[in-house]
Amino acid sequence: MITYITQKFNIRYTETDQMGFVHHSNFLNYFELARIEWLDKIGFSYAAMEKKGIVMPVVATNVNFISPAYFGDWLSIILSMDEMPKARIKLSYKVINQESIEIANGATTLAFLDQKHQRPVRCPKALLDIFQSL
Amino acid sequence: MITYITQKFNIRYTETDQMGFVHHSNFLNYFELARIEWLDKIGFSYAAMEKKGIVMPVVATNVNFISPAYFGDWLSIILSMDEMPKARIKLSYKVINQESIEIANGATTLAFLDQKHQRPVRCPKALLDIFQSL
Amino acid sequence: MITYITQKFNIRYTETDQMGFVHHSNFLNYFELARIEWLDKIGFSYAAMEKKGIVMPVVATNVNFISPAYFGDWLSIILSMDEMPKARIKLSYKVINQESIEIANGATTLAFLDQKHQRPVRCPKALLDIFQSL
Amino acid sequence: MITYITQKFNIRYTETDQMGFVHHSNFLNYFELARIEWLDKIGFSYAAMEKKGIVMPVVATNVNFISPAYFGDWLSIILSMDEMPKARIKLSYKVINQESIEIANGATTLAFLDQKHQRPVRCPKALLDIFQSL
Repeated sequence: MITYITQKFNIRYTETDQMGFVHHSNFLNYFELARIEWLDKIGFSYAAMEKKGIVMPVVATNVNFISPAYFGDWLSIILSMDEMPKARIKLSYKVINQESIEIANGATTLAFLDQKHQRPVRCPKALLDIFQSL
Repeated sequence: MITYITQKFNIRYTETDQMGFVHHSNFLNYFELARIEWLDKIGFSYAAMEKKGIVMPVVATNVNFISPAYFGDWLSIILSMDEMPKARIKLSYKVINQESIEIANGATTLAFLDQKHQRPVRCPKALLDIFQSL
Repeated sequence: MITYITQKFNIRYTETDQMGFVHHSNFLNYFELARIEWLDKIGFSYAAMEKKGIVMPVVATNVNFISPAYFGDWLSIILSMDEMPKARIKLSYKVINQESIEIANGATTLAFLDQKHQRPVRCPKALLDIFQSL
Repeated sequence: MITYITQKFNIRYTETDQMGFVHHSNFLNYFELARIEWLDKIGFSYAAMEKKGIVMPVVATNVNFISPAYFGDWLSIILSMDEMPKARIKLSYKVINQESIEIANGATTLAFLDQKHQRPVRCPKALLDIFQSL
C-alpha cells in the first residue's frame, strides 16, 4: 500500500454554507487536490500528462462525512493506493483537521482516457514505473 | 417507492472543466437541487424547516459517472426514495440528458440535526405525514 | 438599448455561505447564465459558436452588492446592452428577487477570441446581424 | 499604504473551465483567501471576529482579467490597502503567476456588519490598532 499525507490547507470561506460548515460537495475537490499534489510529489505532472492527450476522469466516488469542518480549520488528507492501477486507479482518502479529528473519508476510481479518440487506455507506463519505484 | 422527475436545467459554463465536460463535483450540487425541488413540490419547504432549527447534513454519498455532460446539454434528475426515513433519509438519483442518456447515478444519506443543540433528531412528523400521503 | 429579463431561478444551497446568504462570487456565475440564456433566446447558441473555435472570455467585471439573497429566494436578472459590440461586448445586469428587491447590479466586458490562434477577433457577423434585427 | 504578498497557491482543477483556463469567477475567491491570509498574518483572526458577531460582507468589487491562468500554474496575490478603514475597508489585489506575469487585478470594498442586528458598524478597534501598528 502506498500512502501520502498532503500539506495542510485552509478552508475557504466560500466553501462554507449556511449550516455553518464546509458544504459536502467540496470534499470531491479536496480529494482531487490531494491526488494531484501526491502525483506531483512523486514526480509525475498531471498537467504534463494532459498535454500528451491523456486525461483522468473520475468514474466513481463515495464519501462518508464524519465531523463538520469549520472555517478557520486546517485540513490535511491521508491518501492511499492499495493496488497497482491497470485501466483504472482507485485511491482512498481520509480527511483530518488540525486536531487529528476525522472529518471525512472516501474513495475515487479514475479512468485513463485518450482525449482525442475519447477511448479508455491503460495507466501510462511512466506512472507505473514511478509507482513500482516507491 | 416514491419517485420524482425534476425540471430540466441547463449546465452552467462554470461547471465545465478543461476536460471539456462537467466537473464531477457538481453532481453533488445537482443531487441537492433535485431533493430541494422535490421537497418543495410535495409541499415541504426546506428553507422553512431550517428556520425552525432543523438542518439536513449529508452523511454519506456515492456517485457513478456514466457519460460526460456537456455545456449546452439539458439535464434532469429522477429521484427516488425506497424506504420511509427514520433518523436518516436515503435518496437515489439518476441524471439523464436531453436525449435520455444516463449521465450519472448515485445516492445520498442525510441526517436530521437540531442545529442549536447539534444533536440528531428524527425525521419531522410534518414531512413523514406528507410522505405517507403520496 | 437591448433589454432581456431571464427566467426566475432558485438559489442553490451550496451558493450560501456561513453569513447565511449567497456568497458574492456566485453573482459572476449568475451574470454568465443570464447572458447565455439571452443569446439562446435571441437565436444564437454560445455552445455552437465555441464549436466553431470562437470563445468569449470575460476581460473585466464590476459588481455592487445591494441586498442579501437568501436560500429560498427566486432571482431573475435584467440584462441590457447599450452599444453594438465591436471587438468587445459590454453587458449590464440587475439582479432582483421575487419581491423585485434589487440584490445586485454590475457589468461584464467580454472579448471574442479565436481559440486556436489565441487571438482576439471581432464580434461574429451572425451575432451582429441578430442584434441589428432586434 | 500597507502591502502583503500571499503564499503561492496552486490552481485547482475544478477552477478551470472548457476554455482551458481558470474561470473568472474564481478570482473573487482568490481575493478572499488573500485578505483572510493577510488578516491572519497580521494577527487578526477573521473566524474569531465572526464568533463575536461581526461579519464582513463584500459590497462592491471590480476585476480586470489580464492573462489566462492555467492548471499547473502557481499564483500569488499582492494585496494592498491605501486608506485606513472607517465603516468600510477597500483592498486592492494583483494576481501574478510563477513567472511574475500579471493574471488579474481588482479591488473589493467590504462593510462591517453586526450580524445579529443586521446593522452596519465601524471597523473593530482591535483591527484598527493592528493597522496603525504596521
